[in-house]
Amino acid sequence: MLDLWEPILVVNFKAYETAIGSRALAVGKAIERVHLDFRGSATIIVAPPFTELRTLSSSLEVPVFAQHADPVELGASTGAVPPEAVKEAGASGFIANHSERRLRLDEIGFLVEKARSLRLRVLVCAAKPGEAAAVSVLEPDMVAVEPPELIGTGLAVSRVKPEVVTDSVVAVRRYNRNVVILTGAGITTAEDAEAAVRLGTSGVLVASAVMKSREPEKTVRSMVEAMLRAIEKRETSRAQP
Amino acid sequence: MLDLWEPILVVNFKAYETAIGSRALAVGKAIERVHLDFRGSATIIVAPPFTELRTLSSSLEVPVFAQHADPVELGASTGAVPPEAVKEAGASGFIANHSERRLRLDEIGFLVEKARSLRLRVLVCAAKPGEAAAVSVLEPDMVAVEPPELIGTGLAVSRVKPEVVTDSVVAVRRYNRNVVILTGAGITTAEDAEAAVRLGTSGVLVASAVMKSREPEKTVRSMVEAMLRAIEKRETSRAQP
Amino acid sequence: MLDLWEPILVVNFKAYETAIGSRALAVGKAIERVHLDFRGSATIIVAPPFTELRTLSSSLEVPVFAQHADPVELGASTGAVPPEAVKEAGASGFIANHSERRLRLDEIGFLVEKARSLRLRVLVCAAKPGEAAAVSVLEPDMVAVEPPELIGTGLAVSRVKPEVVTDSVVAVRRYNRNVVILTGAGITTAEDAEAAVRLGTSGVLVASAVMKSREPEKTVRSMVEAMLRAIEKRETSRAQP
Amino acid sequence: MLDLWEPILVVNFKAYETAIGSRALAVGKAIERVHLDFRGSATIIVAPPFTELRTLSSSLEVPVFAQHADPVELGASTGAVPPEAVKEAGASGFIANHSERRLRLDEIGFLVEKARSLRLRVLVCAAKPGEAAAVSVLEPDMVAVEPPELIGTGLAVSRVKPEVVTDSVVAVRRYNRNVVILTGAGITTAEDAEAAVRLGTSGVLVASAVMKSREPEKTVRSMVEAMLRAIEKRETSRAQP
Repeated sequence: MLDLWEPILVVNFKAYETAIGSRALAVGKAIERVHLDFRGSATIIVAPPFTELRTLSSSLEVPVFAQHADPVELGASTGAVPPEAVKEAGASGFIANHSERRLRLDEIGFLVEKARSLRLRVLVCAAKPGEAAAVSVLEPDMVAVEPPELIGTGLAVSRVKPEVVTDSVVAVRRYNRNVVILTGAGITTAEDAEAAVRLGTSGVLVASAVMKSREPEKTVRSMVEAMLRAIEKRETSRAQP
Repeated sequence: MLDLWEPILVVNFKAYETAIGSRALAVGKAIERVHLDFRGSATIIVAPPFTELRTLSSSLEVPVFAQHADPVELGASTGAVPPEAVKEAGASGFIANHSERRLRLDEIGFLVEKARSLRLRVLVCAAKPGEAAAVSVLEPDMVAVEPPELIGTGLAVSRVKPEVVTDSVVAVRRYNRNVVILTGAGITTAEDAEAAVRLGTSGVLVASAVMKSREPEKTVRSMVEAMLRAIEKRETSRAQP
Repeated sequence: MLDLWEPILVVNFKAYETAIGSRALAVGKAIERVHLDFRGSATIIVAPPFTELRTLSSSLEVPVFAQHADPVELGASTGAVPPEAVKEAGASGFIANHSERRLRLDEIGFLVEKARSLRLRVLVCAAKPGEAAAVSVLEPDMVAVEPPELIGTGLAVSRVKPEVVTDSVVAVRRYNRNVVILTGAGITTAEDAEAAVRLGTSGVLVASAVMKSREPEKTVRSMVEAMLRAIEKRETSRAQP
Repeated sequence: MLDLWEPILVVNFKAYETAIGSRALAVGKAIERVHLDFRGSATIIVAPPFTELRTLSSSLEVPVFAQHADPVELGASTGAVPPEAVKEAGASGFIANHSERRLRLDEIGFLVEKARSLRLRVLVCAAKPGEAAAVSVLEPDMVAVEPPELIGTGLAVSRVKPEVVTDSVVAVRRYNRNVVILTGAGITTAEDAEAAVRLGTSGVLVASAVMKSREPEKTVRSMVEAMLRAIEKRETSRAQP
């Protein structure tokens, strides 16, 4: 099962033009270089569309997640990608309940259990602190809080609505001590990523900032470095009397 | 754009255990052998899950369809596979509105238009003659009539409910002279496939009969041969004075 | 079964604040006065939310439609309102497939058949000429073309995109000679309603223009009068040699 | 706000033939007689379809719930019944996330918050102990655990799968001390209802047992009496040294 070293950066490729075919592989390669440099001290994950899952999994060393998995068993389901198919394609896990692909609660429950039994990691998204808390009761590996109104705006939740992040940490920790908490929505710069860690989460979920970047490697690298600095500061301040 | 030689046999892999990984490739290889033998005189299409689309497209000569495509443009859609991603993965077309993945009418309209602009073939499913007629107005390449209550039963619509097939042909032809009409639901044997052609359609859509077969090559071959015989008979009888 | 005298004006109450309780009844009463004045020469229909259906049906003489019906049979369905419940509540028909409540094609098929068997009128909405044509094959009583991007904008489709209206009439009439065609989306003024009739449709589907009006009676009356004038002109010009 | 005296019996009318029109009122009247006899010592709630909400609320003294509410604000939503419309129709609350009308987690969150602000009671259903626990974090008034595979079978979860009930109580109480826990699915007899209370829940959610009963009053009365006996026993045994 994939180790989750803090800080964590998940790049959701969505269905951008850069998310398919040779461009997807190029973005993946760029991110892989950062991954190789920070292996063991940070976790970088790429999440391409289903159709690119196997190619990226087999071509890259950076861990690959699916952006979704369908809450069904293997069998007579047309058009569906069950978690088993995600695993078969070489992925280490999948995102569930992204605001652009919301799920019913029973479906999230099914997917979290199925991920566990297949030894896949699962990252569940939520829009608000209360939902993040509810989801954390199902014991996914990671939960990401993403106010949908900020997604894709370039206005980072960690800077524009820091209270959403801190409230989420408090709400989630009331019910689950272990789940990894990520910050999403509008994360664009290294400073946004740093703020996410400073506010008490373990990393960020990004999309357009990398997928629309002319220099995805540089973008990812600066975010990882900023988050590492923030973690160091946090630990230093804790160590002080 | 893929040529559609009559008779047509579409194998929907669904999400069966045999539909992913090396087993999917093995089934694909078996079907490819029949394809190579009947190239130019029949059309065989395989429809694996999204995650196997590129592998099968690049490894096999038999045409590949996706089982579905999401009715969205390229862009900020998480977990979605737009038609462009289907094409990029090497597929020649996709199925839409299968009874296990029903779509809204506006979504079918979007997908048919998008397929046309991308030069992808699109096969739209419908449950009843009236729906098949409605769908044919949107001018997809193919329409398949599949009474959902027979899907997966082994009771072929062409034998148990032949009137559904003939009614569909009449209903569709009232509105669209060119669309290719296929028969689906319960098609299991060569006789079922033959009946489908005899009743006036251009071929069949099958799933479990092949995906659960110990000898998928033999199953597919016998269906294609039976349909070719039925076409010959039909033409002979037409040719007579 | 409700007679459909041309011109037709359908007021979709949606779930506006004015759509529930005593305000809904007040709007209904205002519209009823116009109905009484034009009885036999125009058809005015009000479509309140499910919860107001019975009250308005039993208190008003103006015909009442539901805004939707669930495509299920009577039975073990929680939260559903089958067409039978709509009829039981006193309504004369229902709207289906509104852009704010889109349905799958098989569901539209079910609802049109069920409406016929219950002797309820059914008005099916569509976003584009092609979809309207497809829907008309199912033979509903009325079809309304509403480009969703104009709904609620105050920009009337009949004035901003008249070609959508005329294209729809052509597309629908290719497949169905009898279905009543309405124009919707952005209809705000008497001129908008008049244009809808001038372009060849039988009336309009409106919502905010009436529900947010300070004088709903006046708004409705002016639209009906304008449509009657347009019909008269049309007939005069036809009568001329 | 409606007082919730233990034991609680919620009768979900679903969309049965007996759930609409005069039959709905007759069933409501029968249940009202039991309500009047046990007022202050038990809570009985009837949940008719949207179209019968106002009639039953205004004609009966027994509290009325909607079977669902749409997770939208008042405004431009066609076919929707927002919580405000439910309240306006005279209901004391609503059911959410029934297995026949599942909701996304964010929608449940919206509805729970909205119910609180409108002073409506909300009963959220869940299929499994883990989901019930997750839902209880959102702090609804009541949560009902209903394994969908038993709904409508006549096999009471409290007798066939008592561990689902006890596991649910344990799981929910880990996260929420106050939420009222109900048992649902297959509850048919007084013994089933008694078992539900004995296993630690506050009452039951029933449907077909009452709606298909020739003597709904008798059915409801016997269930309430059995639950009252079970509560008494529980309290006696607690009181003993």
